[in-house]
Amino acid sequence: MNLALIGYGSVGKAFARLLHKKQSQYPFRIVAIQTARHGAAYHPHGLPIDPPWGPPAPSIGEFLDKAQAEVVFEVTTLNPATGEPALSHIRAAFARGLHVVTANKGPIAHAYEDLRSEALRAGVQLRFESIVMDGAPVFNLVRETLPGVRILGFHGVLNSTTNIVLEAMEQGQSLEDGIRLAQKIGVAEADAAFDIDGWDAAAKTAALANVLMNARTNPLLVDTKGIRRLTPEKLAELKPKGKTIRLVSRAHQGKEALKMRVRAEVLDLTEPLALARGTSNLLRIETDLMGTLGILESDPGVEQTAYGLFSDLVDIARAI
Amino acid sequence: MNLALIGYGSVGKAFARLLHKKQSQYPFRIVAIQTARHGAAYHPHGLPIDPPWGPPAPSIGEFLDKAQAEVVFEVTTLNPATGEPALSHIRAAFARGLHVVTANKGPIAHAYEDLRSEALRAGVQLRFESIVMDGAPVFNLVRETLPGVRILGFHGVLNSTTNIVLEAMEQGQSLEDGIRLAQKIGVAEADAAFDIDGWDAAAKTAALANVLMNARTNPLLVDTKGIRRLTPEKLAELKPKGKTIRLVSRAHQGKEALKMRVRAEVLDLTEPLALARGTSNLLRIETDLMGTLGILESDPGVEQTAYGLFSDLVDIARAI
Repeated sequence: MNLALIGYGSVGKAFARLLHKKQSQYPFRIVAIQTARHGAAYHPHGLPIDPPWGPPAPSIGEFLDKAQAEVVFEVTTLNPATGEPALSHIRAAFARGLHVVTANKGPIAHAYEDLRSEALRAGVQLRFESIVMDGAPVFNLVRETLPGVRILGFHGVLNSTTNIVLEAMEQGQSLEDGIRLAQKIGVAEADAAFDIDGWDAAAKTAALANVLMNARTNPLLVDTKGIRRLTPEKLAELKPKGKTIRLVSRAHQGKEALKMRVRAEVLDLTEPLALARGTSNLLRIETDLMGTLGILESDPGVEQTAYGLFSDLVDIARAI
Repeated sequence: MNLALIGYGSVGKAFARLLHKKQSQYPFRIVAIQTARHGAAYHPHGLPIDPPWGPPAPSIGEFLDKAQAEVVFEVTTLNPATGEPALSHIRAAFARGLHVVTANKGPIAHAYEDLRSEALRAGVQLRFESIVMDGAPVFNLVRETLPGVRILGFHGVLNSTTNIVLEAMEQGQSLEDGIRLAQKIGVAEADAAFDIDGWDAAAKTAALANVLMNARTNPLLVDTKGIRRLTPEKLAELKPKGKTIRLVSRAHQGKEALKMRVRAEVLDLTEPLALARGTSNLLRIETDLMGTLGILESDPGVEQTAYGLFSDLVDIARAI
């Protein structure tokens, strides 16, 4: 199966390494890559991990026409406030009858319902496991292993940067120190304000609500407050009481409307949500038939995000 | 799709209720039930939840011949030391070309490799999601959502009775008080010694190792010690230190052999495994590509076990 990548940052490269490792078992190959920084690369028999770069294609449409791939991986960095340019890339792929895997939460947070119908009409698959909790199965878990279950709500700690910042502040460091640490680890968004002000968590909340609860919502409808006004003093006060703070995403289907919010919440250290430390994330899904089911991902890195892309790819190969 | 049930205790009945609830969406019907206590019941168009009982069939073979079902549910109570009589029931179903769902861990803990080949030869499916952590997806999760992943080991708190007993002892009650409480809640094995001495946890450990790690092992090969020698005093001592005790199952693929053990372990209350309180269970799976992935089931009851049977049934309907 031939793959084209739009974007080739740390996630794209980790994905390429993973494919090379699994080559004998899974015959997938990357035949084309388009990047903003390096230009483009093509080879019909598969590209090496560090490909020879030529000039970029003048547009994504022309890139895809030349790529001759069956599955397109949208792994660019994004503007979480709009979902672009990922959204246009996905539509360019649909227009050419190509399956899409994206690591960008924007399109799913802003336009899932439209994209789902468009994929259906185009007769192609759309997958996005890595947009929440990296490669940990969340969307695939619900779709594949919870048949007949209705999702009533969910709550979770889904943003790693704020975990790291809050832990730094617990140690007496400033918000800015914490952000620098998260950037050094490589988990902060290009503009860390998207993490600190809760936009990343809001986008994940909207994406989960759209996919798991058919919500037709978007991040702007999530009642969101970030962690900017918290101080090291506040966290220091809580510590001896066995408490901490995490940025928590919540959604719940009320009688009339779906309620969604992102808030810094004070948590007892023995609560499940307090397990989300460092890059670890926890999501608890509230269901009608299976009670509350939690998924805990421990200390993931870029390899786990790449695994999310890989599991989506295998899922598409199975489905078609 | 026509179903036959062997056994009709609290889990079987909860399963029947669930099927009635989901009738419009999922056209499954129970056409035959055989029990040791009530006798047998048959109806080709589907039985009510409280069926009219007639005399039991003289053997499981004769029951299945009369039942005219496509999927057999083995939900009897078992002897975890041998896997019988569930094992014979499953083989009787295979011999008639019938798919099997079992809620009994014994057969999977003792004879998974054989059963898998026998099912393959008979051209039928065998499913058993509810044997570990009720209906929480464990086996289905790994099979359906973690393609290409190798399981290197796992650890978890998988026995609810010992959670409840240890929590009672933490409150100053005796081991016996704790057992009575677990029996009252309905989570203790018929003979609570199977829980207290670690046999239930060992059977689950062996079953997980067999299925997730191709271990060809059995519960007798799990190095097992239960909680019988613990005292309320020991637990009371740990409490002010922010620590508790849980019966922990561990398996790890060493260089030469698979190491498995069940032990009462002292845990810090902020550790993931300490989240397993009451009937809540936690399993953490160690993988090559996805790091460590945890599944947390919160306060399940018999409905969640029934859901495990239901999800297996849907899975079989999809697979065939």
